[in-house]
Amino acid sequence: MDAMLSDPAFRTYAICVSILAFKMLLSAFYTGSRRQRHQAYINAEDARTFGRQGTTSAEVDSAEVAHALRIQRNDLENIPTFFAVGLVYVLSGASPLGATAYFWTFTVARLVHTVAYMRRIQPLRAICYGVGALCVVGMIVQILLAALRSPTV
Amino acid sequence: MDAMLSDPAFRTYAICVSILAFKMLLSAFYTGSRRQRHQAYINAEDARTFGRQGTTSAEVDSAEVAHALRIQRNDLENIPTFFAVGLVYVLSGASPLGATAYFWTFTVARLVHTVAYMRRIQPLRAICYGVGALCVVGMIVQILLAALRSPTV
Amino acid sequence: MDAMLSDPAFRTYAICVSILAFKMLLSAFYTGSRRQRHQAYINAEDARTFGRQGTTSAEVDSAEVAHALRIQRNDLENIPTFFAVGLVYVLSGASPLGATAYFWTFTVARLVHTVAYMRRIQPLRAICYGVGALCVVGMIVQILLAALRSPTV
Repeated sequence: MDAMLSDPAFRTYAICVSILAFKMLLSAFYTGSRRQRHQAYINAEDARTFGRQGTTSAEVDSAEVAHALRIQRNDLENIPTFFAVGLVYVLSGASPLGATAYFWTFTVARLVHTVAYMRRIQPLRAICYGVGALCVVGMIVQILLAALRSPTV
Repeated sequence: MDAMLSDPAFRTYAICVSILAFKMLLSAFYTGSRRQRHQAYINAEDARTFGRQGTTSAEVDSAEVAHALRIQRNDLENIPTFFAVGLVYVLSGASPLGATAYFWTFTVARLVHTVAYMRRIQPLRAICYGVGALCVVGMIVQILLAALRSPTV
Repeated sequence: MDAMLSDPAFRTYAICVSILAFKMLLSAFYTGSRRQRHQAYINAEDARTFGRQGTTSAEVDSAEVAHALRIQRNDLENIPTFFAVGLVYVLSGASPLGATAYFWTFTVARLVHTVAYMRRIQPLRAICYGVGALCVVGMIVQILLAALRSPTV
């Protein structure tokens, strides 16, 4: 089983999955800190438990919290897809060079995307989104080509 | 590593993951096009950058955009789960026939689900949702049976 | 391929993925049952098809339905990440003991999290969230250590 890490493509995948998963945890923490700062709890039970005395829950998320939630939502639309497509790409016989190019480009693009979203920098955020999406499309094309070429006996 | 694609079950998995991941990208594009058409930007920075002159951001998503976002959300609740369960099913020794039946049924059901959601066709959308969920349940049952039968030395 | 299930770490992963995926389906069912009970359909086409006569769609989700949706959303932020990180952890040579500890702790924490969310019990829900996140962080650290130690020839 250990043999997998000696495959450079899988090793790069493992490192990039780790970085992106950790980033997602930090994004959740960021949302939580917005809630805390603005005392903006959407669940009554959270306002009671974590709010300052007298805090009540809100009908809707405050603008700051909703913005933080959109950062997370954008990750949810993109990163789990990368997890699946990236692994299939590795298991379909990715070259070390291809894996390095796709995985690191995607990872850096999503890290910059988060920072650009937090600081509300456009069109940088949109560009990072596009770069990430293009990495996924590139891997999909290579997976399909490899699947078509592969003989199923 | 290339050997994986010569396993017909993995090959089918790879093709279906590719199709579903591409569909998710198209759904994101669909949501973006609704925003553009209705000039309905929720982030102030997006309205400034992508809106026509004088466009301001909205307090809440417009009905059309919210509908498009629900299509994506339904995918997020179902497709990443399929990615994980499907791969475990393959790695647990899925038969080529079982893989073909589950993976293609799920993939077609989710494609039709999206079209039915876009065109607001019920109960077709609900039926497609149910068919997809049943595929996942079927694989879960087979994985658990295989795990129970498997000797752990 | 069947060999994978004879690896105790993968076997535990397979069982925990199955349990969590099934739990996510039940959470979706729970949300649907809230909609049905409160006749709170957000899509006009759903109100027409599934509502009692004269039911109209709502502008926003009712409080009960929104609460149920937040249970699902919290799962979406955490469980697909676990699916990816857990598999990488297995493929990086997880020990049977490590896999059992991380996978079962995460799985039980997320099951209790759902029940605590449904019954609005705090701070139990927050503690379960934290325990799950710590499991993911622990696996990330072990993956990165294994990747650094692994020789890439």
